[in-house]
Amino acid sequence: MSDYVTVTFEPAGAKAKVPAGTNLYEAAQQAGVKISGSCGGQGTCGKCQVHVTGGMVSEPALQEVELLGAPLIERGTRLACQTQLLGNAVVRLPSAQGAVVRKALPAESVRSVPLAPNVRRYDLKIPAARLDDQRSDFQRLAEAITEQPANLTATVQCLRSLATALRAEDQDVAITAVGSQVVDVRPALERAPCLGVAVDIGTSTLAVYLVDLETGEHLVTAAGQNPQTQFGADVISRIQYANSHPDGLTVLRDDVLTAINQLIRQAVEEAGAALADVYEATIVGNTCMHHIFLGLEPRYLAESPYVPVTTEAVSTSADRLGLQMNPRGNVFCLPCIAGFVGADTVGVIVASELTRRDRPTLAVDIGTNGEIALWSGERLLTTSCAAGPAFEGAQIHHGMRAAPGAIDEVFVNGDDLAVHTIDDQPARGICGSGLFDATAVLLELGLIDTKGHMVDGGSCGTLSDTVAGRVAGEANERRVVLADAEQSANNPIVLTQRDVREIQLAKSAIRASTEMLLEIVGLKPDDLDEVLIAGAFGNFINPASALRMGLLPEVPEGRIVGIGNAAGAGAILTLVSRHERDYARQVAETAEHIELFRSSDFQDRFAEYMIFP
Amino acid sequence: MSDYVTVTFEPAGAKAKVPAGTNLYEAAQQAGVKISGSCGGQGTCGKCQVHVTGGMVSEPALQEVELLGAPLIERGTRLACQTQLLGNAVVRLPSAQGAVVRKALPAESVRSVPLAPNVRRYDLKIPAARLDDQRSDFQRLAEAITEQPANLTATVQCLRSLATALRAEDQDVAITAVGSQVVDVRPALERAPCLGVAVDIGTSTLAVYLVDLETGEHLVTAAGQNPQTQFGADVISRIQYANSHPDGLTVLRDDVLTAINQLIRQAVEEAGAALADVYEATIVGNTCMHHIFLGLEPRYLAESPYVPVTTEAVSTSADRLGLQMNPRGNVFCLPCIAGFVGADTVGVIVASELTRRDRPTLAVDIGTNGEIALWSGERLLTTSCAAGPAFEGAQIHHGMRAAPGAIDEVFVNGDDLAVHTIDDQPARGICGSGLFDATAVLLELGLIDTKGHMVDGGSCGTLSDTVAGRVAGEANERRVVLADAEQSANNPIVLTQRDVREIQLAKSAIRASTEMLLEIVGLKPDDLDEVLIAGAFGNFINPASALRMGLLPEVPEGRIVGIGNAAGAGAILTLVSRHERDYARQVAETAEHIELFRSSDFQDRFAEYMIFP
Repeated sequence: MSDYVTVTFEPAGAKAKVPAGTNLYEAAQQAGVKISGSCGGQGTCGKCQVHVTGGMVSEPALQEVELLGAPLIERGTRLACQTQLLGNAVVRLPSAQGAVVRKALPAESVRSVPLAPNVRRYDLKIPAARLDDQRSDFQRLAEAITEQPANLTATVQCLRSLATALRAEDQDVAITAVGSQVVDVRPALERAPCLGVAVDIGTSTLAVYLVDLETGEHLVTAAGQNPQTQFGADVISRIQYANSHPDGLTVLRDDVLTAINQLIRQAVEEAGAALADVYEATIVGNTCMHHIFLGLEPRYLAESPYVPVTTEAVSTSADRLGLQMNPRGNVFCLPCIAGFVGADTVGVIVASELTRRDRPTLAVDIGTNGEIALWSGERLLTTSCAAGPAFEGAQIHHGMRAAPGAIDEVFVNGDDLAVHTIDDQPARGICGSGLFDATAVLLELGLIDTKGHMVDGGSCGTLSDTVAGRVAGEANERRVVLADAEQSANNPIVLTQRDVREIQLAKSAIRASTEMLLEIVGLKPDDLDEVLIAGAFGNFINPASALRMGLLPEVPEGRIVGIGNAAGAGAILTLVSRHERDYARQVAETAEHIELFRSSDFQDRFAEYMIFP
Repeated sequence: MSDYVTVTFEPAGAKAKVPAGTNLYEAAQQAGVKISGSCGGQGTCGKCQVHVTGGMVSEPALQEVELLGAPLIERGTRLACQTQLLGNAVVRLPSAQGAVVRKALPAESVRSVPLAPNVRRYDLKIPAARLDDQRSDFQRLAEAITEQPANLTATVQCLRSLATALRAEDQDVAITAVGSQVVDVRPALERAPCLGVAVDIGTSTLAVYLVDLETGEHLVTAAGQNPQTQFGADVISRIQYANSHPDGLTVLRDDVLTAINQLIRQAVEEAGAALADVYEATIVGNTCMHHIFLGLEPRYLAESPYVPVTTEAVSTSADRLGLQMNPRGNVFCLPCIAGFVGADTVGVIVASELTRRDRPTLAVDIGTNGEIALWSGERLLTTSCAAGPAFEGAQIHHGMRAAPGAIDEVFVNGDDLAVHTIDDQPARGICGSGLFDATAVLLELGLIDTKGHMVDGGSCGTLSDTVAGRVAGEANERRVVLADAEQSANNPIVLTQRDVREIQLAKSAIRASTEMLLEIVGLKPDDLDEVLIAGAFGNFINPASALRMGLLPEVPEGRIVGIGNAAGAGAILTLVSRHERDYARQVAETAEHIELFRSSDFQDRFAEYMIFP
């Protein structure tokens, strides 16, 4: 890993670990940070200006000197596309640049696949009908398409405008087929883009990735909160809401649909296109989000024996679902695996090509619900565990989501603790990665013992006085100050004994599940080639902290790889490639779902892993 | 044919030629006459009372004596189901019985095929989910269906109610699948019939046949006028209306759709079922009716080079078309062959199994447009000719449709002409079969010469004075009185010289077309095993008259067979059998359409056949 360097983009604090020599424009994409630019990295448009505040980067290129001038360059302004990283660096973006869309992180770093979308565009001149060629309009059109899908048909809606469209410009037309169905024939002059959206329905966050299906280019990401959060942070509270209100499911469904439609509209407008240009949507989300989006009864997901209505991939036309795009466009919902292992996990497996790997690999998606997929090299096992929302900041005294002011890093600085907050704002709380670091650091310092007790600062001889001074309270009320009143510009931000208990429960559930899956296929942790951490979260946690607190199987730190929002990446891949869509179906069909959580073995193991290493 | 007897049902005048020994109930079905009855022909319900006014029938059965009593029987009252035909007979129906639905004629005499509808009903108990069987609701349901269609899916609408439906009655459910898609799962107690409709969209008449898809039983026929007739009697005037009004096509489409919906509702109500129980509709009609029904631009059917928008079979869900039945039910429009050889002709070919025959056979559908299909034993040729509406009574001085008061038979009675009118009403005009007879009789009597001139009664020495006295006027104004003022209770009903010219044009077009098709495949008329006359019309014309006037190739009279509304029969067959649907597609694909009408050869032949034999 010695050839990799880390770059931090301020003010958002987004980071990327990239090969030395990578330019800042590409690195920003890796970090999920959007930088403007319209020349395709030629250094000619001048739009990708950034400010290098520290670290090692390449000397200014000729284009930079010409476009920016020496005075600006001396103050650190550079063109991101012309500046290579030579070592770790910190880069500040002008306020117009780089709103971090954490959910959007990996959209730009989706592995590249040959373009083979389900939506096909054909620009053709159709032979005109003659008395000696009286084939129907549709037949002449279909036979003009040389590489046509099998059993080509057309929607009635499309047939209704076909005769006129063909004759408007002397049989010169742009044809759009979704699957084997022609949905649109327009005179060539009315040709419009051929777009698709990949939609990631997270319990908390929604993301819409707009993709050009003729080039595979990712055009725009639009992200926002899932408005269902008003009915509770986790899926169980959403299900309870649906169960206890007559129109509960309809309300939940309408809420998320309205929000997704808003994001699609926003993305399409930003791309200067029209809703009717969007011919396909692919959807990922956990099984509950999937059910609510489709309007399927979620009740039985939460009642023993916890079965979904369906786990199959669902394909239907957009107007059947109320999704605002081309009404005859297709909506493809990736398949689910089980009640608590959903289409999002299938997306993660697709994005990481988990089952195409030669060596055993573990993929973990850490959230309220922990989803775990283990590829043994031959078998794909999945399980889920109720990790609780601790790692998302819920049920933590000062917990919060990853937003400006959240403590996202905790580290030892000289003889004291130090923290970093998102956007360098005054500390407002602790987010998931901060909790990992805090737990690891306090374990390392001996302020938390292996049973999870916070010890009295005074009784722990090895501590500096400054650190010991951060401990206050007794027994269950004991707490450690992470950011004092000055750093927070208000009350001190603390980690409490109760917080540690929550963290213990969560990490124990995940660890016990992964260890049991390994046992089932007869593998040891060290057999794992990589441990992939999915979720926006995964890109921000410190692998060393995750290992120190015992969350993950004991593998060398270098094997732990954050793969960002891989579920969203899976949605994008199935949007641009039918083959990846087939792969998604195959993944769901071959997965062996293991219900561990209710087995007594699991309970034993769970108790065992409550102990910190 | 000596074992066949003819029965006439009065007052409608409907006839059937049936094997001697057939009971009157079955014979009525053959004639398209509906007789009530609820005991299934056991002779116990007493509902099928008819009045035998003449001819040879079997002696009263025991049940009849018991139910009706001797006095009634002596006056000719019989139970249709207990009365066998021993010779020709005339039977009068009580006014409550037997509204003739001419369009409906063959629905009851559709050839029987093994039941294999596209819609399948499964009554199943689904295994309940358990902790050790966490398959999704849909997966458990799908796997419980042992003979399931390939790639079974479900509509989102159906998935939405699935969880609740399964659990309402302990997993006891009635499942309905349309094609490979489950559209409906109801708790067993809410089980309802599983129905389909075959719809025949005629230029003049609409017919809806309601069929039980679990038994194949034909439940109800509803028929009515095509309301588009207000915009013109033939397809060309409909197309002109669509072309010349901004919303013309929409108006035409809405009109026919509203009428079909009304007929479906009427049929469903009569069967005591609900619209949602109708899961499939099959549609036949000529290409113009097909296009208007689907909302496809009909303009180019009437402009050179006369191409349809599509000739492929169209399958789409009912709500996409506005057809009022189960909204997720499927509508299957049979394929067309060409701009003037439509799904109705495909229906005729399917119903008559034309291309499954060993011997060459000709099928002719006589209407405004004559559609002709010739099966050579190896090749299927089709053509169409603009016969003009003469045979439907249009552009004929006293022409009318087959309705009460129409002269439907003309014959020589002693030394005079005699006529029969429908329902024995005073003569109001002449319908198609009357025109055939009149032409043949007048040719035979020498009142019309081979060039189609009406000759002066006086100059034709062989005529009786009574017949000669029927001729009046000179040259182009010459006419023959078929029914005098007394018979018509008003003005005399006449056949004019101009009428004969119209008839000549029509018969010449059809005859020239059939002869040319025969030549193409190298056959002579005598090689034809049968000549099938389709259309309600076909069952009423006198084969001898058709031959005498030179309408048909010269074959022995016995080979001419009226097959009634075979288009409607084709719609029924494709409704009850997927295999017949495949057959329909295959027919449309293999048909070689020959465009004769605009060839110079055709013009020569057309002139040649203007001569009467």
